[in-house]
Amino acid sequence: MSVQQAVIFAAGDGERMRDYTARPKVLLPMGGRTMLKRHLTALSALGLREFVLVVGYRSGEVERFVRERGLDRRYRLHIERNPEWELGNARSLWAARHLLAERFMVVMGDHVYNHTALQGLLDWPGDFVGVFDSRPRFEQSDEATRAWVENGRVVRLGKDLEEFNALDAGIFVCSRRVLGVLKQCLAEGQDEWNAVKCAWIRQVPLWVFDLDGAFWADLDTPTDVNAAAQALVQQLPKPRDGIVARLLNRRISIPLSQRLTRTALTPDHITLLSFLLAVGGALAFALGTWGGAVVGGLLAQASSILDGCDGEVARLRASGSARGAWTDSLLDRWADALILAGMAYGFATAHTASWVWGLAFLALAGAYSISYSESRYKSAFGQALPYEGGLPAKRDVRLFLALLGGLLNAVPLALALIAVLSFAEVFRRLWRYGVRSPLRG
Amino acid sequence: MSVQQAVIFAAGDGERMRDYTARPKVLLPMGGRTMLKRHLTALSALGLREFVLVVGYRSGEVERFVRERGLDRRYRLHIERNPEWELGNARSLWAARHLLAERFMVVMGDHVYNHTALQGLLDWPGDFVGVFDSRPRFEQSDEATRAWVENGRVVRLGKDLEEFNALDAGIFVCSRRVLGVLKQCLAEGQDEWNAVKCAWIRQVPLWVFDLDGAFWADLDTPTDVNAAAQALVQQLPKPRDGIVARLLNRRISIPLSQRLTRTALTPDHITLLSFLLAVGGALAFALGTWGGAVVGGLLAQASSILDGCDGEVARLRASGSARGAWTDSLLDRWADALILAGMAYGFATAHTASWVWGLAFLALAGAYSISYSESRYKSAFGQALPYEGGLPAKRDVRLFLALLGGLLNAVPLALALIAVLSFAEVFRRLWRYGVRSPLRG
Repeated sequence: MSVQQAVIFAAGDGERMRDYTARPKVLLPMGGRTMLKRHLTALSALGLREFVLVVGYRSGEVERFVRERGLDRRYRLHIERNPEWELGNARSLWAARHLLAERFMVVMGDHVYNHTALQGLLDWPGDFVGVFDSRPRFEQSDEATRAWVENGRVVRLGKDLEEFNALDAGIFVCSRRVLGVLKQCLAEGQDEWNAVKCAWIRQVPLWVFDLDGAFWADLDTPTDVNAAAQALVQQLPKPRDGIVARLLNRRISIPLSQRLTRTALTPDHITLLSFLLAVGGALAFALGTWGGAVVGGLLAQASSILDGCDGEVARLRASGSARGAWTDSLLDRWADALILAGMAYGFATAHTASWVWGLAFLALAGAYSISYSESRYKSAFGQALPYEGGLPAKRDVRLFLALLGGLLNAVPLALALIAVLSFAEVFRRLWRYGVRSPLRG
Repeated sequence: MSVQQAVIFAAGDGERMRDYTARPKVLLPMGGRTMLKRHLTALSALGLREFVLVVGYRSGEVERFVRERGLDRRYRLHIERNPEWELGNARSLWAARHLLAERFMVVMGDHVYNHTALQGLLDWPGDFVGVFDSRPRFEQSDEATRAWVENGRVVRLGKDLEEFNALDAGIFVCSRRVLGVLKQCLAEGQDEWNAVKCAWIRQVPLWVFDLDGAFWADLDTPTDVNAAAQALVQQLPKPRDGIVARLLNRRISIPLSQRLTRTALTPDHITLLSFLLAVGGALAFALGTWGGAVVGGLLAQASSILDGCDGEVARLRASGSARGAWTDSLLDRWADALILAGMAYGFATAHTASWVWGLAFLALAGAYSISYSESRYKSAFGQALPYEGGLPAKRDVRLFLALLGGLLNAVPLALALIAVLSFAEVFRRLWRYGVRSPLRG
């Protein structure tokens, strides 16, 4: 029942882009790859398994690009020509009608979006569901299609609406029933996709999937392209970033990631590199000398910075996947354990102070409990642990404490701080969301 | 947009139950509490905030029950009388029409179900969504309403369908638009809720939320009541249970839980008791004597058994919550850490063998990685880590190894086994679902 097929509208000539480039918009670069490649990786990660690319303006150029890179075989991509693309974009869906499954997704080829915000959409029922944004933060409302939404359905829609409470993000899930209304519209000389939506909502509900402020942008002008490229970078820091991530790590990792997107390195490679740096850090700490601890701390901090890059590169390239995020998280926990073990081993051996293992044990239990309380919350509640300050005990802070411990030759103190901060924060979470939760009952 | 209100149909006289009891079915006991209380706790845990209970047959009895227990205030429960209950159950919805929100849930009062299987339903769009079961395992198809489902929507529906691929589980989400069709049906003398569904699907899709084999049952006869009570117990073991849980723990915890449902103990109390047993086990291990290790192992195993009871009692009573599951999991991780620390401390002190801390550190990292890899998978993929054997390294096995380590006075061996099994299993998971995953890309 989950939707498997996506139709990408890529037939338009991007008129207002002409001063900038004559290339079809789907071949424009964004975040280190073409718009087309972005769509294919992002939608594949979301679970789509078959693509129909409807081309028109300079179709030969797009077709050549697809064939040369083997995208048609790699992504089960069919190319369909819309000979009447100049009439309006609804003609693109009409041109593809013989290829369509019972339910399919429709995506505007010149829209950039963060596919992770679309999780769940493919499982929704309905003959016509549209992705809208009730809190647009990145897209300007003077160009976008506006909508008035009530009780989860679109009541009015148009570019010129005076009153509106959502913008149309250009992504839809439709059943073949929409084709009936489409046919009617075309017969009446209405060739725009917006006209089909308007005709539909006069008869049947168009349901709203709300992006609620997640990143998306529509590329109509050269200014839009620059703004989208900037917004893509601006949304890399996460609202839940710890203080060290915000003030130090992101300032290094983001420029680095922008460079890395232009290399052949994948996020998986970066995950592995970051892990290897942590292994190096653990070995250096294990030497038990001050010099070793300094090198260990520096390597741990370098690993922490690089640990931001895998996710950043994935988001810039729209290639992020659940698999990648899961693998990265597991290796992060092993890296945490290795560094703590290195610190304990080095100090215990050099100072014949085996009690430091007790500290490392506590630090490990605390550190793991921080991560576990977050992932277990999401898995139980289906949403992230609420963010509201709390104590600084996330990974960025813990590895920074390891750095300080190394630089100041104060490994036991660093371990103790990691343990205390982590346990205090997990206690706070348990009290706030476990014992005192308003959801009790 | 998420649905907040549920209407519970409780007006019928349960004709075929008469030999057994004359009480309205919603007052029947099931899993240690009345059906009504089950609905209220289960639906509240799901996110519903307001209830309309439609009564008819012996309505005074139900009303008295509600008022005496203060359920009306505690759950924002309105009671509505359906004076025409004998005509058919669609009259119940009609009687409640002045109380209904824009979208609301409809629940058959005599249906038992596992509310955790309904997660996501309240966020679905649609004017009419029904909960169906395409793989009924508990309910008999000769009594239930049958349906033929295609492309996620009901095509045909009725008790006498010869060909069917799903059963109607008696739970719906409707918008007020359904009231229009309901009115039409009543005007035509069709007073059954099934008739409303049939009239609806002739015009508009009735979308299907599939239970896919999750537990539910319909109580029409005394036999049904007994079968449901048995099925409620049969579904307590989880398919992911480890070998010790299956062969030992569940055989003790399930009979114990059945007794506990009749006490005033809440699942939270049981969670706490299980944690305290683990603390006791850790302290006994920390003594460093063989006797201490024996007691420690026995307490750890007792804690492991009791750890099954909180979830079992919650499921029997339909009072399970994400909050409870999360709290329990966090305390389990702390109990794990405490027991491993107790084992290490006791042995290291008694034998001046500080190297055992290294083993405990590894065992802790392995144990936490097992739990973390599962919760992080669910939080990333939105579904559980696939179950397909793997090595025995879950909590039931780890605490059983602690017991053996205590009984045989072989604490270091137990720690080593826990570490090796856990890491081998996490490696397998990482390889299978991280590195070799078909979802790569």
